[in-house]
Amino acid sequence: MTDTVAAVDTETAVLDACRQAKIASRSLATLTRAAKDQALHAMADALVSEAPRIVEANAIDVERERAGGMSSGLLDRLTLTEDRVAAIAGALRYVAGLPDPVGEVRRGSTLPNGLRLLQKSVPMGVVGMIYEARPNVTVDAAALCLKSGNAAVLRGGSAAQHSNEVIVDVLQGALESCGLPRDAVQSIDAYGREGAKVLMNARGLVDVLVPRGGHGLIQTVVKESSVPTIETGEGNCHVYIDASAPTERAVAIAVNSKAQRVGVCNAAETLLVHKDAAARVMPALLEALAAESVVLHGDEATSALAPETVSIVAATEEDWATEYLSLDLAVKVVDSLEDAIDHIQRYTTGHTEAIVTDDINAAEAFSSRLDTAAIMVNASTRFTDGGEFGLGAEIGISTQKLHARGPMGLGELTTTKWIAYGDGHVRP
Amino acid sequence: MTDTVAAVDTETAVLDACRQAKIASRSLATLTRAAKDQALHAMADALVSEAPRIVEANAIDVERERAGGMSSGLLDRLTLTEDRVAAIAGALRYVAGLPDPVGEVRRGSTLPNGLRLLQKSVPMGVVGMIYEARPNVTVDAAALCLKSGNAAVLRGGSAAQHSNEVIVDVLQGALESCGLPRDAVQSIDAYGREGAKVLMNARGLVDVLVPRGGHGLIQTVVKESSVPTIETGEGNCHVYIDASAPTERAVAIAVNSKAQRVGVCNAAETLLVHKDAAARVMPALLEALAAESVVLHGDEATSALAPETVSIVAATEEDWATEYLSLDLAVKVVDSLEDAIDHIQRYTTGHTEAIVTDDINAAEAFSSRLDTAAIMVNASTRFTDGGEFGLGAEIGISTQKLHARGPMGLGELTTTKWIAYGDGHVRP
Repeated sequence: MTDTVAAVDTETAVLDACRQAKIASRSLATLTRAAKDQALHAMADALVSEAPRIVEANAIDVERERAGGMSSGLLDRLTLTEDRVAAIAGALRYVAGLPDPVGEVRRGSTLPNGLRLLQKSVPMGVVGMIYEARPNVTVDAAALCLKSGNAAVLRGGSAAQHSNEVIVDVLQGALESCGLPRDAVQSIDAYGREGAKVLMNARGLVDVLVPRGGHGLIQTVVKESSVPTIETGEGNCHVYIDASAPTERAVAIAVNSKAQRVGVCNAAETLLVHKDAAARVMPALLEALAAESVVLHGDEATSALAPETVSIVAATEEDWATEYLSLDLAVKVVDSLEDAIDHIQRYTTGHTEAIVTDDINAAEAFSSRLDTAAIMVNASTRFTDGGEFGLGAEIGISTQKLHARGPMGLGELTTTKWIAYGDGHVRP
Repeated sequence: MTDTVAAVDTETAVLDACRQAKIASRSLATLTRAAKDQALHAMADALVSEAPRIVEANAIDVERERAGGMSSGLLDRLTLTEDRVAAIAGALRYVAGLPDPVGEVRRGSTLPNGLRLLQKSVPMGVVGMIYEARPNVTVDAAALCLKSGNAAVLRGGSAAQHSNEVIVDVLQGALESCGLPRDAVQSIDAYGREGAKVLMNARGLVDVLVPRGGHGLIQTVVKESSVPTIETGEGNCHVYIDASAPTERAVAIAVNSKAQRVGVCNAAETLLVHKDAAARVMPALLEALAAESVVLHGDEATSALAPETVSIVAATEEDWATEYLSLDLAVKVVDSLEDAIDHIQRYTTGHTEAIVTDDINAAEAFSSRLDTAAIMVNASTRFTDGGEFGLGAEIGISTQKLHARGPMGLGELTTTKWIAYGDGHVRP
């Protein structure tokens, strides 16, 4: 009985939050860039001046999670200090400096009948964000949504509940000080998993859901939501060394793709080497990777070419499908470009694939035939990134095909509206 | 036991069809426009030469449905004659004449580090279409998918099962005669509702689902699918007559929006009249609408202004929310532009709203504040249409905000791919 009552209360409360967000979104939609940027700076100022209160609330979360056995890595991502709060405030000022994604004319023409037609970018309305226990994401999400004219309904991890509630309260105060509605940014952390489920099914109130986090979180949101969702981020990325690949370039790109940063979605997880290049390139490749402490999972042909100083773990079928997110790399010799494409088509998550080649035909076949968000020709997989692509703030990297594919900037938090101007036009 | 076995068989068969479609989609993705157009013409030729076989299969469907009590309107939409088959073949040739939506460079730049970046349009891959018993949609869907480089998995109404199976067989023969894979166009009608459910959840195999049909069909697909879906078509469209609206223009646009064609999603369903214009405009408006046999559901203020010859049915709350799709129209006097916007925000399905005005401020407020796919300023709601907007073939009119909003052309059946060209670029 109590459970049912609580469930009904949660549903009412979360739907009510979404409704208030929808109302707030109407005032946000027509704000000028100046008004939005002023609010972003006010939010940054408020975070800095309220940093002690935020750090205090965060300490409660950190203590509880430490006692509960959270790993030191996750505890570090959860922890806020006054310096970290200042850095987060800096991110708000950065977003204020980005162009306004709203009001851009995407297409337009005068039709044969004289009707003047425009397609303009407009805010989505209400954006739901579901993410894990990193309080900085709360601020990022609020900033990106505000800049794109959207209201935000946020569900962070329960581990960061105190931190998020204080942060949202501070941001709401700053919004009010600028004459904007508090309800433009709301947290539903207090309603737990049940609240998240209500958010995922608030069709008509929530216009888009953006999950940010690990595989499990994203798959849950994608499967359980009836609200349209943007799927982000799994990356089983490949680097293919073609027959014609210069050795030095092959080594540089393979090492950078795997080891420049570990645990990111655009890092390489499998290296494929054309058999005609293998004898020439493989020893140098394996040596350079081993020098970066990469654990190499190779097929038999790879093992046969490995220098004595480099040890190779025998690769299994599972390795080809694994996104290690660590200093591990699967390595395989392929018979041809065709074989490389077939292998990638079978195992890719559709994020990024790179080819190292001097052969224009190989580059064209690789880039046109693989069905993936990004192709790098003679460049590291690590370039698939909103910042590197010049999109400004990155909301995530979409591996789905609907709406956005690859790095998403502020523009991907907008939709469009057609406006037609006539002088009494009717259809004959 | 038998049911379970059948369910397993259906799942295997439909997933297998999707897998074959995925394989076929890889050859379609890199076809030239010339090859696609040649196939479209071959499909048209085959439909014409096989018309007798198609009409014969269709007669079985029509007979069964007639015996089953299908209404004459639906029977007419189901029925094929040789002339109708020829008209459908003509639609294929029309699609052949449209520009190729694949390979368009959407964005591109040279990054500060010299990496040359392009964002190109590419096919989605496998498009699922779920629609009602109109065999012409089978051909339309196959044509639009082929032109956009996608494989199509089609689920038409069970009432058109024989017709669709023969049509798909004819189209597959034409594909083969051009050296293209049969599996590029497949029907899963034989697997009934269970098959449709498998299609709706074939994540990873089906890239996008496009439902075409009535409210019930679209809502079912949107709610039950885990595959990304494009929602099309409900239109509770409004025409607002502003205080400054010239009488003649107001009458022309209101009549055209309601009565130029009945039963279409871009027809008006509610007319709102500013109180300061009501005494001047309303009698002429109501008379002109009544002359077109429009049944008027009015509020009290409307009734008070109606000429004696025009009868008004008292409007209820339900009228404001109804998409009649008939010669009915709800009519209301509003106190202000604000009231009109509030009313529309409450009842709109987000399709199209029109304003008739001479006041630039009213036009701007109306077009910027309403959250809807299309706004008509001094033009009929009937212009929200892919053909009218110059998009060529129309796949549907999206009332969702993700991916596409408003009339969708071939371009909306594509996604994008980023391609970066370097000469050994690595991230520092």
